[in-house]
Amino acid sequence: MIIDNQHYRTVWFSPQTNTVSMINQVKLPFEFELVHFKNYKATAEAIRNMTIRGAGAIGATAGFAMAQAFAELSSEDDIAEARSFIEATRPTAVNLFVATQKVFKAGQSGMKQAIEMAQLIADDDAAACKRIGEHGDALIKSNSRILTHCNAGWLAFVDYGSALSPVYEAQSKGKHPFVYVDETRPRGQGARLTAFELYQNKIEHRVIADNAAAFYMAQGQVDMVITGADRIAANGDVANKIGTLEKAIIAKEFGIPFYVAAPESTFDLSTASGQDIQIEERPDDELLYHEGLDENGELRTIRMASPGSRGLNPAFDVTPAKYITAFITDKGLIQPDEIKKTFNGEH
Amino acid sequence: MIIDNQHYRTVWFSPQTNTVSMINQVKLPFEFELVHFKNYKATAEAIRNMTIRGAGAIGATAGFAMAQAFAELSSEDDIAEARSFIEATRPTAVNLFVATQKVFKAGQSGMKQAIEMAQLIADDDAAACKRIGEHGDALIKSNSRILTHCNAGWLAFVDYGSALSPVYEAQSKGKHPFVYVDETRPRGQGARLTAFELYQNKIEHRVIADNAAAFYMAQGQVDMVITGADRIAANGDVANKIGTLEKAIIAKEFGIPFYVAAPESTFDLSTASGQDIQIEERPDDELLYHEGLDENGELRTIRMASPGSRGLNPAFDVTPAKYITAFITDKGLIQPDEIKKTFNGEH
Repeated sequence: MIIDNQHYRTVWFSPQTNTVSMINQVKLPFEFELVHFKNYKATAEAIRNMTIRGAGAIGATAGFAMAQAFAELSSEDDIAEARSFIEATRPTAVNLFVATQKVFKAGQSGMKQAIEMAQLIADDDAAACKRIGEHGDALIKSNSRILTHCNAGWLAFVDYGSALSPVYEAQSKGKHPFVYVDETRPRGQGARLTAFELYQNKIEHRVIADNAAAFYMAQGQVDMVITGADRIAANGDVANKIGTLEKAIIAKEFGIPFYVAAPESTFDLSTASGQDIQIEERPDDELLYHEGLDENGELRTIRMASPGSRGLNPAFDVTPAKYITAFITDKGLIQPDEIKKTFNGEH
Repeated sequence: MIIDNQHYRTVWFSPQTNTVSMINQVKLPFEFELVHFKNYKATAEAIRNMTIRGAGAIGATAGFAMAQAFAELSSEDDIAEARSFIEATRPTAVNLFVATQKVFKAGQSGMKQAIEMAQLIADDDAAACKRIGEHGDALIKSNSRILTHCNAGWLAFVDYGSALSPVYEAQSKGKHPFVYVDETRPRGQGARLTAFELYQNKIEHRVIADNAAAFYMAQGQVDMVITGADRIAANGDVANKIGTLEKAIIAKEFGIPFYVAAPESTFDLSTASGQDIQIEERPDDELLYHEGLDENGELRTIRMASPGSRGLNPAFDVTPAKYITAFITDKGLIQPDEIKKTFNGEH
């Protein structure tokens, strides 16, 4: 994607120097910084401290770290230890384990094969997202007004993104889509990351309070909703950023199509339904405090809520399949009851 | 209501010293400050700069300012000029005009009558809110879990409030209500004012992101929703803080009762339906920036959203009557189709 008129992937690997480079997402949107890691340990640490985040981006980065290990180390034991080190960074990220496993296996045939596999994982992620964009673009008319929640853009993947990929595709075809960007409290990924992506890529957009979505829907000013997903169960229930359920319910109330965009790797056939998904409860400080730029351009954290009061901070919610018009996947548009026959669950 | 274990009204008048005293709401919740105004001009300025806000509180303050004018001035022309000065502070606040008119009329019989009328207006506001609390309390069971949006507490009136008055009444009867406090972005009146009120009055509560309401409703953890209203049309459509519509829709989806609490003065029989209510679009800076306490305890404003991106900031939305279970009024619980026969429109 484009930043300051230049193309970037979220993360990439330079085998000549054994270096993994990435956009430092901890500093976005207030500072754009590229960071470079010359060994697997440093790359793994970047996953751990969320310099990079998002399912697809984490997977690709873990694959690159595994390839770095093959370049750095020679003994089998050392490489196996490196794999464990990488896998311990974000133990709940499924894509991470899939990537380390694939690169580890390829590496049994040699360093070159490990590097090729790591590059393939990243390329596949970008290609899957690109196909999501093409399939989703078919839904977008000229000047369509699209509401999105959280960040499921290219920053969460290697390139293109999931929910935003159709928007980029539509823009490239001259359709001039307009995006309502839900702020996405408490962490503000919409106001911070999605707004940053769209601004850099010259997509017309406005940030709105999460409270304002129904207002624009009631006025007939939203043509469709597209969100990403953290995990999609076999029956089509969707775990995604807190607030997704509200948007899905109000979209249905106003007869507005609600699409969930995701590559095959997000569909988890081993989870039968949303009831089987455990929702992470996070520290309430994420809600009561917020980081931003002060009047001197310095990053600063302020307390927003009344001192003494505490909060509750569920990070995700589950949107039942009945609210979802269709899934936009790399294999085309599919209905919830088509998940099992479309994906075999091996990825 | 109680602050630091002491009872306060939001605003009050001391005729002996011709002084209007009020809680400085600009500094809440980070500083509790009482301010005192010894002449009508200073009191009017406090309405203008939002030292005091909220329909009922503004009405009472305007009445007090008008009474101050009678104590300060003698010529009819000067008093008429003072009335115009007071009425120019918040020209869209209906309660303000009702109060100045009543005190001005009473003052034709003398200063004493003006002061008595001003006190009566404030006492009536508190009494109406107290009755709302008694009627609403009948809906609250032991340990009921109530979700509220924005601030419709005693800070918006002279005492008790509208949406929160039933909560205070239930607490006084030992029912131990629990309140989910919607943060209420963009201005955060829930996290700032409602949380402050509930904390000071020892009501168990938690602040939640506006996005999290459906999550708790879906889990069966919300027994009812109570909000206030800025204006209620003759057909029962409700204009209130942005986001109220979303809460009403999701409450209906989950079969959770949705109540709107308001005194007679909020019902505007001259507005036929919600379609006749103009929604105020406010500056997007309210969304893109936020004020809070920094790590040194100083008030500071930070930019939350990605630089370069703009926002949209509708201040209110309209909730159609069909989503409202009942109105909790000073005259009891009423249905939308009972508004016209309950209130004659003269207040």
